Amino acid sequence: MAEAAERSLTAHLFEIFMLILATQIMGWLFQKMKQPAVIGELLAGVIVGPALLGWVVEGSLLEFISELGAIFLLFMVGLETRLEDILKVGKEAFIVAVVGAIVPFFGGYYFGLYIIGFSQVSALFLGAALVATSVGITARVMQELDVLSRPYSRIILGAAVIDDIEGLIVLAIVSGIANTGSVETGGIIRLVIISFAFVGGAMALVPFVRRIPLDRLPFQSPLGVSIAFGLAMATLASYIGLAPIVGAFMAGMVMAELREEYELEEPIHAIESFLAPIFFAYMGVQLDLAALGSRSVLIAGGVVSLIAIVGKLFAMLGALTQGLKNAIVVGVGMVPRGEVGLIVASIGLSAGAVDEREFAIVIFMVVVTTIIAPLSLRPLVAWADPEVAASRESA
Amino acid sequence: MAEAAERSLTAHLFEIFMLILATQIMGWLFQKMKQPAVIGELLAGVIVGPALLGWVVEGSLLEFISELGAIFLLFMVGLETRLEDILKVGKEAFIVAVVGAIVPFFGGYYFGLYIIGFSQVSALFLGAALVATSVGITARVMQELDVLSRPYSRIILGAAVIDDIEGLIVLAIVSGIANTGSVETGGIIRLVIISFAFVGGAMALVPFVRRIPLDRLPFQSPLGVSIAFGLAMATLASYIGLAPIVGAFMAGMVMAELREEYELEEPIHAIESFLAPIFFAYMGVQLDLAALGSRSVLIAGGVVSLIAIVGKLFAMLGALTQGLKNAIVVGVGMVPRGEVGLIVASIGLSAGAVDEREFAIVIFMVVVTTIIAPLSLRPLVAWADPEVAASRESA
Repeated sequence: MAEAAERSLTAHLFEIFMLILATQIMGWLFQKMKQPAVIGELLAGVIVGPALLGWVVEGSLLEFISELGAIFLLFMVGLETRLEDILKVGKEAFIVAVVGAIVPFFGGYYFGLYIIGFSQVSALFLGAALVATSVGITARVMQELDVLSRPYSRIILGAAVIDDIEGLIVLAIVSGIANTGSVETGGIIRLVIISFAFVGGAMALVPFVRRIPLDRLPFQSPLGVSIAFGLAMATLASYIGLAPIVGAFMAGMVMAELREEYELEEPIHAIESFLAPIFFAYMGVQLDLAALGSRSVLIAGGVVSLIAIVGKLFAMLGALTQGLKNAIVVGVGMVPRGEVGLIVASIGLSAGAVDEREFAIVIFMVVVTTIIAPLSLRPLVAWADPEVAASRESA
Repeated sequence: MAEAAERSLTAHLFEIFMLILATQIMGWLFQKMKQPAVIGELLAGVIVGPALLGWVVEGSLLEFISELGAIFLLFMVGLETRLEDILKVGKEAFIVAVVGAIVPFFGGYYFGLYIIGFSQVSALFLGAALVATSVGITARVMQELDVLSRPYSRIILGAAVIDDIEGLIVLAIVSGIANTGSVETGGIIRLVIISFAFVGGAMALVPFVRRIPLDRLPFQSPLGVSIAFGLAMATLASYIGLAPIVGAFMAGMVMAELREEYELEEPIHAIESFLAPIFFAYMGVQLDLAALGSRSVLIAGGVVSLIAIVGKLFAMLGALTQGLKNAIVVGVGMVPRGEVGLIVASIGLSAGAVDEREFAIVIFMVVVTTIIAPLSLRPLVAWADPEVAASRESA
């Protein structure tokens, strides 16, 4: 027993080591090529994962550590975001989130139902998988470019929170249809109330938190309080059914009020810089390239990816108050679907509503949207926000 | 499938949150009572663990994260330790390690065999469980007291590395006897060579590492290189059969040469301050208080604890060059047995060489030595090292 445990300890240590080593090297390479490090980190996972070398395999332990990485990433992003700045662009964020959910959902649903002959339920799942943005990738690119404080970044972050709530609601609806054939209105209303109460409750904490003397609470350190709070909110979000990163982001935004006074940013950034690359690399590890082998999957996947991208680009309509260029950045920033789309599709798979081929189409869409967004964001931001380009040149 | 995974994600997030919250509060409480925070963290684990509240349970995921915490703790301690300072007290460390292994081993063996009627093999395992120091606890207390750079701390750290090699060798010998009835000399010699080659190889890196420009290697950041190197050494140590923390400590000591140039200390400390308390709390979570219920276990456990303590106090003979007071600090610093003793006993348990009652006696010894050392170290250091006491009063 103990010896087996020791062996698995060595194996897991080796996996974490490999992920850190590979993300460090590939991230460096992509930075050298003036591309986002995050894509290098994703590819690092593909390289050491089952798709190529097979040194790192999927497992619940790595999955959890990668989730911790996403939590610290969004907590850090929250720390750099003030609620008042998000509220200033609240109307824009709301429209972006709503348009960016409706267009891809119906686009995916009708394409599935009428063009490639999915069943009613499969088509609903395809639409649902296209709803929620996976904000981690975009947040990381914005962090790298040091533009988290720009209005377009704030619109994206605010919209991503609302997006996640929409995704949860849509998932509840389509799961209900798949399982019982009907929508349980009471349950959906409860979900909506709980989700908004969670986000609203976190926002309501902000005015009070400024008066809390973190160093005089019965805790070892202000950093300890912050981490405990971030994990509490991530746990609570996960318990409600929202993504843990939404809770972590809200917690970071609450703590942003105290960030400077207690020097929370550097230590949280250190933890994030250790764990977040594991999150992106693990996305790559999970990538089943073999599933993408068939030609019909590639064609359907290509069209669905297009719907996913164009659908979110429609969302830019909500951000036109910031000028066309910034609005385009917002639209592209909302494109990545990542793990959220996969979760929706895998729920459909285990409910028997989605088959292996349909699942592979969703994987294809996730890969395309996850890679295309960061690749295009960098030049787009430089074009839309010349100040950034200038400050980066001189740096 | 996905839903079950989500549920377990929430459950594990809750456990990590509870461990952070409880260690923060209990650590604060113990600091207020002028006691080491690490004991509060241990008790935090007892409180939220199966022994009391049952909110956190043993599991491979928590075990791995707690091991990562120990790795970052010893990596950090290594960063604050220069090889030349360890070598200066090398002779002392060696004698401390050898005396501190021989006396408890034979004390435990003879007590088991002649006084409480253990079988030959059980008595060997009891002796083996008393050999290796669990240096994490002591290192953390020395870190809290800010005395890691004192000669007595260095003797303890150096001796702990040698100790772990001794423990590995003793374990190989008694496991061989338990499994095949004989000792395979060739295997033992190979172990000795590999262990010393590992430690010697790491030490040999030190003169070269100073000339390495970390920021010009093909890695994203100097911090990333350091973490990758620390994890590589921990993995390698674990693969050889040594404790991962020995590898992490050696890696830290190698990187100590570059510590100031690349500002490695603060970010590593941030990661450590998040993960290390989880290591100590998880020790508490694993504590099976029910196993300590019987009177015969308590009595035998009390005597074995005494042997464990007195045995390591003999080791102070090796440190008498530093004066009696400092030598006593060294002896007490070597007392904690922690997880190393438990691993030895559980290997005996799964080999059928140790029964449940004998296992409980070892647990009792581990609890006593793990708690008594940090409790006495604080006043002892203040007594042996008045400068420290003075600087702490004025702080």
